[in-house]
Amino acid sequence: MSETVAPSHPFDAAVGLTPAGDGRFAGHTSADYANMVGPFGGITAAALVRAVQLHPDRLGDPLSLTVNFAGPVAEGQFDISARPVRTNRSTQHWALELTQDGVVATTATAVFGTRRDTWSSDEITIPAVPAADSVAPESFPDFIAWARNYEMRFVEGGIPKLESVEHPTSTSTLWVRDTPARPLDFPALTAMSDVFFPRVFLRRGKFVPAGTVTLTVYFHADAAALAEQADTAVLGSARAQRFGKGYFDQSAELWGRDGVLLATAHQLVYSKD
Amino acid sequence: MSETVAPSHPFDAAVGLTPAGDGRFAGHTSADYANMVGPFGGITAAALVRAVQLHPDRLGDPLSLTVNFAGPVAEGQFDISARPVRTNRSTQHWALELTQDGVVATTATAVFGTRRDTWSSDEITIPAVPAADSVAPESFPDFIAWARNYEMRFVEGGIPKLESVEHPTSTSTLWVRDTPARPLDFPALTAMSDVFFPRVFLRRGKFVPAGTVTLTVYFHADAAALAEQADTAVLGSARAQRFGKGYFDQSAELWGRDGVLLATAHQLVYSKD
Repeated sequence: MSETVAPSHPFDAAVGLTPAGDGRFAGHTSADYANMVGPFGGITAAALVRAVQLHPDRLGDPLSLTVNFAGPVAEGQFDISARPVRTNRSTQHWALELTQDGVVATTATAVFGTRRDTWSSDEITIPAVPAADSVAPESFPDFIAWARNYEMRFVEGGIPKLESVEHPTSTSTLWVRDTPARPLDFPALTAMSDVFFPRVFLRRGKFVPAGTVTLTVYFHADAAALAEQADTAVLGSARAQRFGKGYFDQSAELWGRDGVLLATAHQLVYSKD
Repeated sequence: MSETVAPSHPFDAAVGLTPAGDGRFAGHTSADYANMVGPFGGITAAALVRAVQLHPDRLGDPLSLTVNFAGPVAEGQFDISARPVRTNRSTQHWALELTQDGVVATTATAVFGTRRDTWSSDEITIPAVPAADSVAPESFPDFIAWARNYEMRFVEGGIPKLESVEHPTSTSTLWVRDTPARPLDFPALTAMSDVFFPRVFLRRGKFVPAGTVTLTVYFHADAAALAEQADTAVLGSARAQRFGKGYFDQSAELWGRDGVLLATAHQLVYSKD
């Protein structure tokens, strides 16, 4: 376990926010987490979680998050407003907006809360895969900057190459870790839930215009479970269910040490082809 | 289009809204769709979709919906505000709130839009089950009023009886149809996406205090595909992935005629036990 919690980690810089009072926070896009158009959706989602975490009225930790990518985020400054819409005894509902020059680029809702011990059961189990160290890391093409901040070791459904052909299924399973290594926290887990490239790339064997429209994350891990992860690799697996009429969905699981399910995530993706 | 004409079907009465100008709509809870505490979550979600449909600025049909059940909805009148946050060429992002006496009970975001023909593929297929007519309908206990508006024919994971025991899996698969029969539309499909009782009931073999915290629906069917369904039964299947620390998630699919995937839905559920 490395204690590289240096404030210089590019992730912390990318989700760094300056409180501006009254539930408002100022942020700035990071070239390190740029995507083809605008920032990596996962880093935007992470910044929204960070905004709630920094809010003085925040209760507990994230239970769920839905982020709607309403329009492009331009390079430069952005503002996040985080409003606690309703606070109950153990849950708190948030409404968030990310704006640039007063124009809404992203909306979100989040549920935060405290947890208690209850009956527990897992109905799904971590896929049987080789250990992270035994799988070679793969790189995205250079023009996808954000991917350089993740060490991705695909055990199934790797990044399509230029000479790729159509693939029979849309499942990708990979070990994923921040690089440089960084202890897992809620913003980092949120970003990782969007680390799965659009499933249409894999099926069609090529990069096509596509982007997440809406992303929902359910957090199964509490803060203690996240702390136990330290900076070890997380196993992620994602697949689509239906493609057609301009959109497709994809669902993902993120697994931690000892096969604990940290989060499940779902998204609807726009696809031009 | 006025919604004040006396509707003949209880569903239309329950989601009937009176436009009050400026994106506001007045509604009233329906005893027909009452749950143990407050209304059936699916009917609230349906009313939110209806509000956007009635809004004069609405673009296209639902692509996704996330509803956050922030607090109880009391019997009586409620107000829905529907705000088009951002309108793009083919998508429109909505922010919604359901309030009672100015107190927020429910928040939601929705993406509406137009669709175009693109490459299509289904990666999941409708479960092999007996025809609806060959499966006997089951009833919920009388105190769950909303369920009386659905004809539910379970092929797997039926309603726990008082003498039930723990069940090894949380999957329920059922044919579901409005009763009396009613042609399928977006509000009705939305409500059906929440027709699956909390999976913890099935696993534990008993009714325990539980309720949906947040529900997300991805609409795969467009209006033409829904019209083709007419009032035939829809096949729904749902299951949980992880239970623990006060919450669990459940995911569902809704299938129509000829095995077409109409919608996928996900929710996070609070559980006291």
